[in-house]
Parts: sequence; structure tokens; C-alpha cells
Amino acid sequence: MALEINPKRLMSRIETMASFNATPGEGVTRFSYSAQDIKAREYLAGLFREAGLEAVTDGVGNIRARLAGASEDAPSVMSGSHIDSVLHGGMYDGIVGTLGALEAIQSIAESGERHRHPLEVIVFAEEEGSNFGSTLAGSKALVGAYSPSDLKKLKNPDGVSMYDMAKAAGYNPDEMPSRRLRPEKIKAMVELHIEQSVVLEARGVPVGIVEGIAGIKGLLIRLTGVANHAGATPMNLRQDPMAAAAQIISLVRTLAEGSGTGSAVATVGRISCSPNVPNIIPGEVTFSIDIRDVRQSGIDGVLDGLAAVAPAIAASFGVTLEIIPVSESAPVILDPGLTTLIENCAKDRGIDYIRMNSGAVHDSCMIAPLLPTGMIFVPSRGGRSHVPEEHTSPEEIAGGAALLADVLLELAR
Amino acid sequence: MALEINPKRLMSRIETMASFNATPGEGVTRFSYSAQDIKAREYLAGLFREAGLEAVTDGVGNIRARLAGASEDAPSVMSGSHIDSVLHGGMYDGIVGTLGALEAIQSIAESGERHRHPLEVIVFAEEEGSNFGSTLAGSKALVGAYSPSDLKKLKNPDGVSMYDMAKAAGYNPDEMPSRRLRPEKIKAMVELHIEQSVVLEARGVPVGIVEGIAGIKGLLIRLTGVANHAGATPMNLRQDPMAAAAQIISLVRTLAEGSGTGSAVATVGRISCSPNVPNIIPGEVTFSIDIRDVRQSGIDGVLDGLAAVAPAIAASFGVTLEIIPVSESAPVILDPGLTTLIENCAKDRGIDYIRMNSGAVHDSCMIAPLLPTGMIFVPSRGGRSHVPEEHTSPEEIAGGAALLADVLLELAR
Repeated sequence: MALEINPKRLMSRIETMASFNATPGEGVTRFSYSAQDIKAREYLAGLFREAGLEAVTDGVGNIRARLAGASEDAPSVMSGSHIDSVLHGGMYDGIVGTLGALEAIQSIAESGERHRHPLEVIVFAEEEGSNFGSTLAGSKALVGAYSPSDLKKLKNPDGVSMYDMAKAAGYNPDEMPSRRLRPEKIKAMVELHIEQSVVLEARGVPVGIVEGIAGIKGLLIRLTGVANHAGATPMNLRQDPMAAAAQIISLVRTLAEGSGTGSAVATVGRISCSPNVPNIIPGEVTFSIDIRDVRQSGIDGVLDGLAAVAPAIAASFGVTLEIIPVSESAPVILDPGLTTLIENCAKDRGIDYIRMNSGAVHDSCMIAPLLPTGMIFVPSRGGRSHVPEEHTSPEEIAGGAALLADVLLELAR
Repeated sequence: MALEINPKRLMSRIETMASFNATPGEGVTRFSYSAQDIKAREYLAGLFREAGLEAVTDGVGNIRARLAGASEDAPSVMSGSHIDSVLHGGMYDGIVGTLGALEAIQSIAESGERHRHPLEVIVFAEEEGSNFGSTLAGSKALVGAYSPSDLKKLKNPDGVSMYDMAKAAGYNPDEMPSRRLRPEKIKAMVELHIEQSVVLEARGVPVGIVEGIAGIKGLLIRLTGVANHAGATPMNLRQDPMAAAAQIISLVRTLAEGSGTGSAVATVGRISCSPNVPNIIPGEVTFSIDIRDVRQSGIDGVLDGLAAVAPAIAASFGVTLEIIPVSESAPVILDPGLTTLIENCAKDRGIDYIRMNSGAVHDSCMIAPLLPTGMIFVPSRGGRSHVPEEHTSPEEIAGGAALLADVLLELAR
């Protein structure tokens, strides 16, 4: 049986949430611990009370808002996302999953359907890394991946730590070790989120059921040649790092496109060149490579191909190659049983869907290793996200929230 | 008969000249019209007097210093270069040709050899474009390519025009139309210059006889795609301008290498990318292309290949391509008779040489269309120029100046 949710209420709340914004007219900017974040939390507190949920906030600002179940001993069923944004971001990233979870749980409460398990909305703090440059900082603190002393080391551009900023906002980060997520107390976690890419739109499908979240390998490539006069140096006497960079950038793309997994992606998003003058052959070119796949073998395939071929490219141009590892995170496979449950609920509700992977990381990455975790994606118009133009239609949001409600009730029965 | 020159005197003058420097310890910086330029000119004025040359300075600071010949009606034989430098440049660029010409002419005077034609040292002002961003500004004013009103439009970063700066230095730019170079009064011009590249060093040869000076076509390439999440966007749904840029940069190199003239070069020396963030597929990539050849057909071949193939590359990645012309100068062919004369003098003196082209522009580019013009190159260690490390050995400088003396005497007899 498909639950009724209240799409108007949900959309009106999403719009209100967008008003807690440090950059009106230039997208949504709501950093954790900011004045806008505090107002958003006051608003949420009112919504939770109104819906009969009991909310507690931990030592870094993660909120857990609980609706009692028929059995108080049963582990809870959890859903939620984050409310912080990037600078000049959109009004849907994180918010659809936070207010969608509340809408789903409030609708279950209003339906009178019996549920043995308690239901919980979780609101993660500091997902975007906007303050301290570290994504998933709130969920990492919740699962113990960040200790209080780690939080002292995470600093914003003004040198203020996450520890100090959380404290100034009225939280007690030192409590976190005792407030850590206890997996035995939670039956499952389901996160609703905007896709942030073009796959659902391109396929014309309103729902994506996420099977895996890509791991990431971040590299910096540095090519060092010899800066020289652009006119006076014949082609065969050059040691031109830009020529090598061009071939290596093409190589990386070819390796990702030809990946055996079919799901690898690789991106060169940053490049710099020295001295960066039109009439001088560059002395040095550096660029980033971001490699992702839901299967480690896909990431490794690109890395292996790069290691096998790039040195020969560099040597052929007489330039020196350095491949510098910058960041790494392992792929996350979401719970197959939960994926199937979401799929069955979608079928029951007659919602068209695809199974897909997530190239972006989410708080669910931190939860998935501990307990059954699933994710539902709704489309992003033009694939745009982290920009003011970020958009998901009310119908798509309502469809995702309704599916989430069915899944949560099924899990909580 | 090979003339004797005085290598010690020449090197000592080059060293003194390097002391008129706004950035001691960080290479040589001597912009036209600066305090250092004024001191260098005072020093030169003394040298010209001492050598029996009569010097006059025109309305932008070009100096012509004349040694009378047996026939006062005969057109003069001219040699020289410039004394201005780039920021943090070297001590040889321009100076070797200026003081080398003086050494050659002074040695002719001291030898007592009869010469019918007057001999002239020419010192060009503002060759490097360090003040106003326009190279060859002094020689352009001398030949009438820049009018006084053009000089008012050439401005330094503080908004001061070349016209006003020349005036403040005591020159009268309004005189230039009447002070213009009169080709009928000059038999030939020979410029000695450092090579500024690696060809002579790579070939192990102390002298290059320049046959042509490359023309230049400067382009800006702008590729516009769609910025998107580096993780969430599958390879086949990207519109990635960096992928297209990599292929076009490789294409340009291949076109120059495969040029029918064998002398084309192409350089991508500047690149920028927006938003230039490792985890975002770029929305826009722009880069410079600098194409040079001594034959226009070589430049045109690269341009034609670019126009034929780059649009298809851009289209294959779903990105928009703009090819924006930025600058253009035509190739210059130096006087073949003069080239042969220099060659014969080198043979007579037993100097090893090659015929070669210049990828860099020189004041001779402005003179060559008007009267027989030749150039002699001496090696640059490691091909470095416009840097503090710029170096040519005393033996190589002396060899070049001695060859120049022979050529000038031969022309002036």
C-alpha cells in the first residue's frame, strides 16, 4: 500500500529553508555554525516538535529527531541528509533528503500505520566541507572517524578549528566519543538526495536506486621541462611540458572511457602552467586528476594505465614526470537487500526507476560500513548542482519522498 | 684580410653596461627612459666621442653615431641593436650588438683601413616592449610605422604614454616624421645579436648567419563546455572543454612538426581553466597558440590544419570552439647578397657557421623592407635569454664582433 505524503507542505518547507541564506539573489550559502545555520536549526526544531519527533543534537551539531515506535527496544529506522551548503550553492542539495525524511516520517505518523521500530530523521552537520575543506566532517565525527583532537586540526581559512567553532555554537565536541553512532541501535539508513548529475535526466527516469558510491583517487601531475623562447626554439629541440600534458590528459580520458568496469570516470579539472606567457614554452605544467569508480578495479585500471604509459610520454618530450597522490577514498557498496526493497517499493508504487551508482560522496558513505544503508536519487535539471541554478521539480521531489515513506514504513513495520 | 678587434675592451664595456641596472643581483633591468637608461646613454656618449663618432639622438631616443668615410656623399653602412632590457633580463641581449658594432667600427678606424662609406652605430630605443607592451617601438617610430599620435596611444601600466615619456626624457617625438630613416642614405644594415635559442649550441657552431626572421600568428582558443560534478557525470555525458583542449594542443604540435617548410614552430604557453577546481569538470578552457615560420606558407599550413580539424574535435566533445586572432606579423627575408657576403667573410676568417632563421623578432625586421639588411647570431648558453642566466662566452662574442668588423669594412670600402 502506497502512503500519502503532503507535497505542498514539503515544498513550502524547502522554500522556507532556502530563506536562511547568507547570499540572497546569488544562490544559497549556509555554512555550518553560521547565523543562517542557527536559524535553519531553530526552524527545524519547530517542525520536529510539530510532527511529534524528539530531537537531540550531538557535540558537533548532528541532529537526531525520533518518532517512537510500538516497540521502544527495537532498533530505529533512520533517514536524512545535511542542511549545510557550498558557497553560492543551490536550494536542494541535502535539503531534499532532510525535509523529505521528515515528510516521510510525519506522513507515516499521520497515516496511523503501525510501526514497531522507531523512526529517526538525521541531520548531518558540515557535509560539504565549506568551512574546513573536509567533506562529511559531521558524519565522520558521528562514526568516530574524526576524534575531538582531529576536530581541533580541521581549520577554516581564518584558522578557527571545527572543534572551536562547534563549541562557540553551543555544542560540546568532547562528548562525541560517548555520542558515537551505535550500529546495533539502528536497523537501516536510507538517504534521499538529488543526483547532481545528468544520468536520470538523460534517461528520462524520475528515480535512481543507488547500488554503490564511487571511491576517489586524487592525483597531482607535475611535468617539468625547459622554459624557452617560443620563436627561437625548433620543435625538435624543445622540452615542452605542455605537449606532454596534452597527451597525458588525453590518455587519462581514454583509460577511463575504456575501463573494464564501464563505470570509471576521470577528470582534469585544474591546470596551471609556468611562466604562463604566450611567447614562452612553459617550464612547468601541473594538473589534477580525479579518478572515480564504484569498483576499485576501475580506479586501479586507470592508475595502472597511467603508470604504464605516462612516463614514456614524458620521456618522449624530454620532460620530468611526477605523479603525486593527493587523496583517496574507497568505493562503498550499499546494502543489496535494501536496494531490492527500494526497488520493490518503486514497482509497487508504479514509479519508473533505474539502478545506478553515485559519483559524488554522501554521508551514507560513513554509515554504510556499519549498518544496512540505501540511497534514492531524484533528477537534477541539466545535471547542475552546487550552483544557484540547481533544480529538481516539485513532482520529482514528491515522488522521491513518497517512495522513501514506503521504504521507511516497510522497514519499520 | 681579417681585422683585429679588441676583445678585452669589448667585454669590459659589456660589463660596465650591465652595471646600469635597476635590479642588481636579480638580472639586468634597464627600461627605456629610466634612470638606468639615462646613465647607460651617458656612458655610450663618452665611448662614441672617444672613438671619434658623432652621435645624434632622435625624437624617441634612437641614437645614430657616425664615423666619417672618405666620401661624405656615400651612403653609410649601419650596425647596431638596442640597450633596453626586459624585467630581470640578461646582460647580452641587445648589448652584444650595440657594443659589438661600436667595437667593429672603432677597430676599423684604428686599423687605418680606408673606407669610402661612413660607418654608423645605431642604438634602437624600446625594443623589448618592457614599458608599453609593444616590441620594436623605437625602430617602428624610426621607419614611420608609428606616428607621433600612435606614440600617444602606447601606454605603460601607469597610463603614461611613450610620447610623454620620451618628452620627459628630453626628446621631441613630434620631430620623428622629419627624422625618419632615409633608405637612400644607407647602404646596408647588419645586426649582431645573441641567438636566444639552442640551435647554435646544439650544433656546436659559434656563428649563425640569419636568412629570415619568422612571422608570427598569435591566437587565443576558447573552448566552452558544461561545468559539472567530476564524480557524478559519466564519461559519455560530459561536455568537457579540457578533453578537447588536450587534443587540440596535440594537433597544433603535430601540425607544426609536420609542416612542409620544416621551419614552423607552434607553442601553447598560456592556459587557463574555469572554475579550475579538481573535482569539477571545467566549463571553459582557454589557451594561447603562437605560430611562427620564416615562410608564410608554414604559418598558413598550421592555421589551415587547425581550422580543418579543431572544429571536429570540439564537436566530438560537445563543446563550442572559438579561434580568436590576437596578433600577426609577416615573415622577413634578409638580403641574400648580404647573407652571402657575411658567409664569405666567415670563410675567410675560418669561422665555422651555419645559415639559420630567427624565431625571435629584432629591430632588423623594421629595417629589412627598406634596405639590404643582414644578421649575425652568436650562441646563447642553454638557449636561455630574457633571464639573469643569459650567457654568451667572451670568445663567442669576440668572434661575432670580429666577423661583423670584416663585413662592415667590406661594405664600407
